[in-house]
Amino acid sequence: MSYQLYYWTGIQGRGEFVRLALEEAKAAYVDVARQEGDEVMNTWLNGEHEGALPYAPPFLTSGRLVIAQVANILQYLAPRHGLIPESEAKRLYAHQLQLTIADLVAESHDVHHPVGAGLYYEDQKDEAKRRAKEFRESRIPKFLHFFENVVERNGGKHALREFTYADLSLFQVMSGLGYAFPKAMARQKLPLLRDLAKRVADRPNIAAYLASERRLPHSEDGIFRHYSELDA
Amino acid sequence: MSYQLYYWTGIQGRGEFVRLALEEAKAAYVDVARQEGDEVMNTWLNGEHEGALPYAPPFLTSGRLVIAQVANILQYLAPRHGLIPESEAKRLYAHQLQLTIADLVAESHDVHHPVGAGLYYEDQKDEAKRRAKEFRESRIPKFLHFFENVVERNGGKHALREFTYADLSLFQVMSGLGYAFPKAMARQKLPLLRDLAKRVADRPNIAAYLASERRLPHSEDGIFRHYSELDA
Repeated sequence: MSYQLYYWTGIQGRGEFVRLALEEAKAAYVDVARQEGDEVMNTWLNGEHEGALPYAPPFLTSGRLVIAQVANILQYLAPRHGLIPESEAKRLYAHQLQLTIADLVAESHDVHHPVGAGLYYEDQKDEAKRRAKEFRESRIPKFLHFFENVVERNGGKHALREFTYADLSLFQVMSGLGYAFPKAMARQKLPLLRDLAKRVADRPNIAAYLASERRLPHSEDGIFRHYSELDA
Repeated sequence: MSYQLYYWTGIQGRGEFVRLALEEAKAAYVDVARQEGDEVMNTWLNGEHEGALPYAPPFLTSGRLVIAQVANILQYLAPRHGLIPESEAKRLYAHQLQLTIADLVAESHDVHHPVGAGLYYEDQKDEAKRRAKEFRESRIPKFLHFFENVVERNGGKHALREFTYADLSLFQVMSGLGYAFPKAMARQKLPLLRDLAKRVADRPNIAAYLASERRLPHSEDGIFRHYSELDA
C-alpha cells in the first residue's frame, strides 16, 4: 500500500520532516502535489473528502485515514516502519522532542515574518532584524543546547539511545538552521548534534535521498531562509 | 495513583489545557508548583531526574514517566480517562486538532510579543499593533472558522461527534480569545463553537472547577492578554 503525501511544491518546508521518515523507511509514497500541482490539495482543505479535515499541509493519507500535522504523521508512521521502538516511554519522549522541534521550526519561520505571515518580508525587515537578534542570541542556543543535552544524556549518539525518527528531524533542523544562520550556527558548540546530523546524512537511504532530485535545495521561499542581514 | 502536574504558578497558560482534562476526569493530581513554588520545576528542567528531559513546563509525571508538551500529555491522559474513544482515526484527528490549537495558542502569545519573548511588551508595542491587525483580521477567522467547520462536519455538537478532550481545549481557546479580543471575537459568526464552549462550561466537573479557586482568572501575565490597543 502506498501513502499519499500532500505538501506545497517547490520547497522543503514542513513536509521535509515527513519525507525524511518515508525515505529512511523506503516506504512507498506519492508526493501528490509534485505530480499534480498544488491545486490538488484544495479539495482536501475545502472539505470535499471524507475523514479528518486538515488545517494546512502537510497531510498524509493512508488508506481511509487522513492525518495532518507533522508530529502526528511521524508518530503514525514511525512504529509501522521501525523508526521507534515499542517502549511507551520512548514513544512519548520522541514525540515530545518532535513537538519541541515543531516549536523551533515555527520560530525559525517567524524570524523573517515577525509581524505576520500575510505580509512580505520586505515590509517587516526592520522588525525581522530585531527578532533575529533574539533568535540568534537566545533562542537558537536555548533550543539546540537542550537537544545537545538530550543526546548526551542518552549516550551521545542518538536522541534516544538508538536510532529513531527524532534523529531524522534533528538532522533537518541542523541542516535548515545551518543554511539560514551560518554565522550564528558556527558560534554554537554542539559536537554531539553535529556528529548526529552527519551520521544521519550518511545513512544509505538518506544519503541516496539527499543526492536525488527529490531533495530540493533550501531557499528563500522555505521556512529556513538565509538573509545575511538576519545573521549578523 | 496521583499525577504530578508541573506548570508556572499564577497563570492559566498552557497548563490549563492539561488541568481541564484532569478536572473533567476527576483524576487525582497535584499541581506541584502551586504547592511548592516555581523553583520546584528547576531540578526537572536542569536534568537532575531520570527519564525524559522537558524543554519547558507544562510537564506531567505519571509513575516513572515524564511527559512534556501539552498535546503529548493530553494524548497520554485521554484514553486512560475516557476522554477519547478507541478509534485510531478519532485519536489521530483529536491529536491533529490539539496540535492546531497549539499553533493558535503560540500565535496568540506572539501577538503581544512579536519581536521576542525575551523583551517586554512595552518595548514591542508598535510591532504588536501591526501583528494584532493581521491576527484579528486574518488568523482568528481562519483558525476559528476551521474549527467551526470541523464541528459542523461532525454533527454540530462536538469536535468529534462525541465528547472528547478536543472539546475541552476548544472551550479554553474560546475563553482565552474572548478575554483577549472581545471586540474582534464579537465580530465572528461562530454559533457552533460558542454553543460547544457553553456546554463544556456546564459539564458538572468543569463547572465545579471553573467556580473553584483552582481556576485562576485570565490576566496580562498569561498567554491570552487583553490590551485594548490590540483589539481595535
